[in-house]
Amino acid sequence: MRIAPDQLVRTADLAATFLFAVEGAAVGAVAGLDVFGVLVVSFATALGGGIVRDLLIGDVPPAALRSVVYPVTAFAGGALVILAHRAVAAIPPEVLVVLDAAGLALFCVNGAVKALDHRMNALLAVLLGTITAVGGGVLRDVMLDHVPAVLRVDIYAVAAAAGAAAAVAALRLGLPRPASMATGAAVCLALRLVSHWLGWNLPQVER
Amino acid sequence: MRIAPDQLVRTADLAATFLFAVEGAAVGAVAGLDVFGVLVVSFATALGGGIVRDLLIGDVPPAALRSVVYPVTAFAGGALVILAHRAVAAIPPEVLVVLDAAGLALFCVNGAVKALDHRMNALLAVLLGTITAVGGGVLRDVMLDHVPAVLRVDIYAVAAAAGAAAAVAALRLGLPRPASMATGAAVCLALRLVSHWLGWNLPQVER
Amino acid sequence: MRIAPDQLVRTADLAATFLFAVEGAAVGAVAGLDVFGVLVVSFATALGGGIVRDLLIGDVPPAALRSVVYPVTAFAGGALVILAHRAVAAIPPEVLVVLDAAGLALFCVNGAVKALDHRMNALLAVLLGTITAVGGGVLRDVMLDHVPAVLRVDIYAVAAAAGAAAAVAALRLGLPRPASMATGAAVCLALRLVSHWLGWNLPQVER
Repeated sequence: MRIAPDQLVRTADLAATFLFAVEGAAVGAVAGLDVFGVLVVSFATALGGGIVRDLLIGDVPPAALRSVVYPVTAFAGGALVILAHRAVAAIPPEVLVVLDAAGLALFCVNGAVKALDHRMNALLAVLLGTITAVGGGVLRDVMLDHVPAVLRVDIYAVAAAAGAAAAVAALRLGLPRPASMATGAAVCLALRLVSHWLGWNLPQVER
Repeated sequence: MRIAPDQLVRTADLAATFLFAVEGAAVGAVAGLDVFGVLVVSFATALGGGIVRDLLIGDVPPAALRSVVYPVTAFAGGALVILAHRAVAAIPPEVLVVLDAAGLALFCVNGAVKALDHRMNALLAVLLGTITAVGGGVLRDVMLDHVPAVLRVDIYAVAAAAGAAAAVAALRLGLPRPASMATGAAVCLALRLVSHWLGWNLPQVER
Repeated sequence: MRIAPDQLVRTADLAATFLFAVEGAAVGAVAGLDVFGVLVVSFATALGGGIVRDLLIGDVPPAALRSVVYPVTAFAGGALVILAHRAVAAIPPEVLVVLDAAGLALFCVNGAVKALDHRMNALLAVLLGTITAVGGGVLRDVMLDHVPAVLRVDIYAVAAAAGAAAAVAALRLGLPRPASMATGAAVCLALRLVSHWLGWNLPQVER
């Protein structure tokens, strides 16, 4: 049996959606939201980045709203947190970091490649890949009245940008699509995890 | 004399727009905004949900910006608060709750039916009806630096979702359009008011 | 040598983009963002208003994302703050007020005229001109967890609205396009600077 590459990408995309929804819901639960609020935040975290990307490239309705698969997947992630909050809270943080990095890697590459497919140029494809990967988390933080973490700490959005750039560069160099996407995802994943384990941060501008 | 159903819906829609604008302006005034800020918040509260819905279903420019009627109605609501702040503040809260519930009921049903008209499937129509009804309030709260109330307390967005779902279900069951919309609005209104009077809240996830 | 008017408008537009990016980045740096966050805030401040306008009038992808010139200009403004933070912080505030007023004047006029070109009516063109001019600053303040300054203090958005209205009125009265745009920009600039120097504020609604 052979799995078609598109099938693989879609499965990975849904897995990342589910994971981001779980993470968003967990943050919302800690912030004291009710069950409806948790579902909203899981939806926004998981699908917000892709929806903003699709609005910006003019692909409407956004892919996340063209079938029920994506909303159902996002709500399932939120429901899991509602139903099994203690179990989710007991997942070791290091496991979450790795899963989150995998989601980040998939989203940044998918977003960049979709932007290229819509004839955006290379720089904008990198930008849109980054927005795809981190936009949902920014929306969540704005709704929960935090300054988005991604603007303050960690090599996170930079890893997404690097992954998107690597995928775009690989495509431009003539690598086949699956290899280019794998390259970009690997770059993002490696940079995110290495920087996390070594405690790297970007410098602040003041002082 | 007979009033056409579409005329009735439009009149009700404008009434809800005006009311949401008044409510948004009142919140903005309490938050210490200047008169311009109050007008902005009245606009965002009254029209923000519908504008987001229209962006998501690809109906641009959004209906709220295709004629001056909607912006003028929203600004009129804001102007009323500016000119007669004390009188507005003196309206009994229970009256406002009923009027607000009526606005919520109209917006959720209109939003869901519009989404169906644009060939969104049933689940997404319910989602978009809910966004239409509560999106403006979320925008207002984010601008005023609150965690949106709708995510934390009350049976509010859930009433909007239930009303949208009832309207969609009635249409799917073959009821005529006006009867379906009336059904949805009644479900939303009843659930919102009963839950308010009985002090129902959704459970929080933590603790 | 003669400079074509369109060329002049575009040059002015890029100058305003750069300036708003520098201002946004400076605010972000003070808020303790890391270098990536500063770049994001410079991008959002400089291009956010125009992107929202283009989404609302249905001109997608937004002009700011159709070539690399605008993103590169915005990021250059952010990079300047990162590389020369002390020098930027040493610019006298009064110089910044004048430069900012010039950017505001350009953006409000450009936004209003673009909305008219897309067949929006006069009131909506004024609204969209104002959104173009102040939208980026609102996005920045929401991301940094402030109630947007433009809603609370100063004759700022009102100056943008007045400039947009003057440009629209001049076009409607039959003035040629360059003269109409210059009129609108002059009105905005004058109102902003005079109100700043005289310490005018709009009244608050409460008390």
